[in-house]
Amino acid sequence: MSFLDRIEACASFDKATYVPFIVDGHEVGLIGPAFIGELGEFPDVFRIEADCAGVDDRLCDFDERTGAVQSVLSELKLRGLFPGWRDEHFPVAKAFSAPPVFNMERACVPRFGVRAYGVHLNGYVRHGDELLMWVARRSMSKHSAPGKLDQVAAGGQPAGLSLRDNLIKECGEEAGIPEDLAAKAVGVSAVYYCFERAEGLRRDIEFIYDLELPVEFVPENTDGEVDAFELWPIRDVAETVRTTDDFKFNCALVMIDFLMRHGYIEPDHPDYGALIHGLRQGRG
Amino acid sequence: MSFLDRIEACASFDKATYVPFIVDGHEVGLIGPAFIGELGEFPDVFRIEADCAGVDDRLCDFDERTGAVQSVLSELKLRGLFPGWRDEHFPVAKAFSAPPVFNMERACVPRFGVRAYGVHLNGYVRHGDELLMWVARRSMSKHSAPGKLDQVAAGGQPAGLSLRDNLIKECGEEAGIPEDLAAKAVGVSAVYYCFERAEGLRRDIEFIYDLELPVEFVPENTDGEVDAFELWPIRDVAETVRTTDDFKFNCALVMIDFLMRHGYIEPDHPDYGALIHGLRQGRG
Repeated sequence: MSFLDRIEACASFDKATYVPFIVDGHEVGLIGPAFIGELGEFPDVFRIEADCAGVDDRLCDFDERTGAVQSVLSELKLRGLFPGWRDEHFPVAKAFSAPPVFNMERACVPRFGVRAYGVHLNGYVRHGDELLMWVARRSMSKHSAPGKLDQVAAGGQPAGLSLRDNLIKECGEEAGIPEDLAAKAVGVSAVYYCFERAEGLRRDIEFIYDLELPVEFVPENTDGEVDAFELWPIRDVAETVRTTDDFKFNCALVMIDFLMRHGYIEPDHPDYGALIHGLRQGRG
Repeated sequence: MSFLDRIEACASFDKATYVPFIVDGHEVGLIGPAFIGELGEFPDVFRIEADCAGVDDRLCDFDERTGAVQSVLSELKLRGLFPGWRDEHFPVAKAFSAPPVFNMERACVPRFGVRAYGVHLNGYVRHGDELLMWVARRSMSKHSAPGKLDQVAAGGQPAGLSLRDNLIKECGEEAGIPEDLAAKAVGVSAVYYCFERAEGLRRDIEFIYDLELPVEFVPENTDGEVDAFELWPIRDVAETVRTTDDFKFNCALVMIDFLMRHGYIEPDHPDYGALIHGLRQGRG
């Protein structure tokens, strides 16, 4: 088992089996054949063609599209198509910095192959020369990846919040990190991946922040999403990421990025180039 | 002018105008049409076909190939084809971690479109919350990029040295950084680029090390390659990289990578994704 195995586990994707999802003239997602069939039942909202699918152009602004799509998705939800419905609105856009063409319930994003964004915080502590990482054990009651290991705080990027405000919110809710401490987090990197899972196509970009925490700080969960926090020597984190899939798939990628940026995986590693590129694939 | 301009300046390359350079069954470079003509004059050493070029398979080991190619290149040097000849041997291989199929004079590497590797050291200082970067002004007598700004120490990766040993050697020669201090450098990243310059195709990978230097340390050049060292506030480095081409082309990329890893270009920058991918293009 190797670090590269963790990356290859997030890379299974055959673009030829998807059609582009077009809204307002821009590709904003990729839809697979089974879901196309479901959408075809709603011709007032979705326009299905041989080589693409889209929201009907008669729905011509953000609010009209958001409302019409939401009503279809609520109906499909009753058929059990979207387990893990969260009542969280994610923006749909051609790029992270582009204005959204509509908002969509988070649980539906993978079925449309729409890009999703998140923030992950590496919360670490220095004891002299030793670096230790706070690791979260995800609640067994979470819909996604129950019991897996995670960063000390992380979350999806909802509509209407800046990345930094979202990070500060997640730091508070997930780990009890006070706002003045969370504000010291440094935005340092991003990982990209694109692969198929049960919920659909995960085409995510996770923005990464590092925060050196005071030795005396102990994280405390306030939203029920974390069962326990543990302070691990960084070598143990590295070994667990390398040899097991105990970390949630995307959290393992965030850890590999940290290990590279902090010199725990160095340029003479035989997979160095494959790791550098592997952490940023799935841009297409 | 933008950070992205610095990256786009290192990205002009049309692969269709090159043929693969094949040695011992592996592609190890890319050769343009003009240089193919020159090599065609040496049929005992180079085999030229319609869609590829290579070292003749009758030269069947490392030493035979190194000697035969060297004798051709020495003759072509007399025609003025390789300004900046250095008597430095670079390894030719299908990948950084693969065994070399022969060694080649460094000045000839771009004509064969062979990958070249280097090490760059970001030598920085912390004054409280402020970060300052040691910047080198390259000697006006250097063949390549005279007078341009550079990292405090950097150098090509010759045959027969590990990356770390080469870094320590360059730290000593270029900046007078003693071995025990240079040994604390942390391997943190790599930048990739591929573009056409006067000397040929630059298909380089620069491995990046960070070293926090003591406040009282002052770099001192010992090999005549640096005219002056200056300690710059990091914001001035960022502004100079963003708005000028005063830094040598690849040193600007190394600085952008540093600015991203240390939070001076953050994830909400509108070009963030383009920068992340732009620093790792040219893998092909």
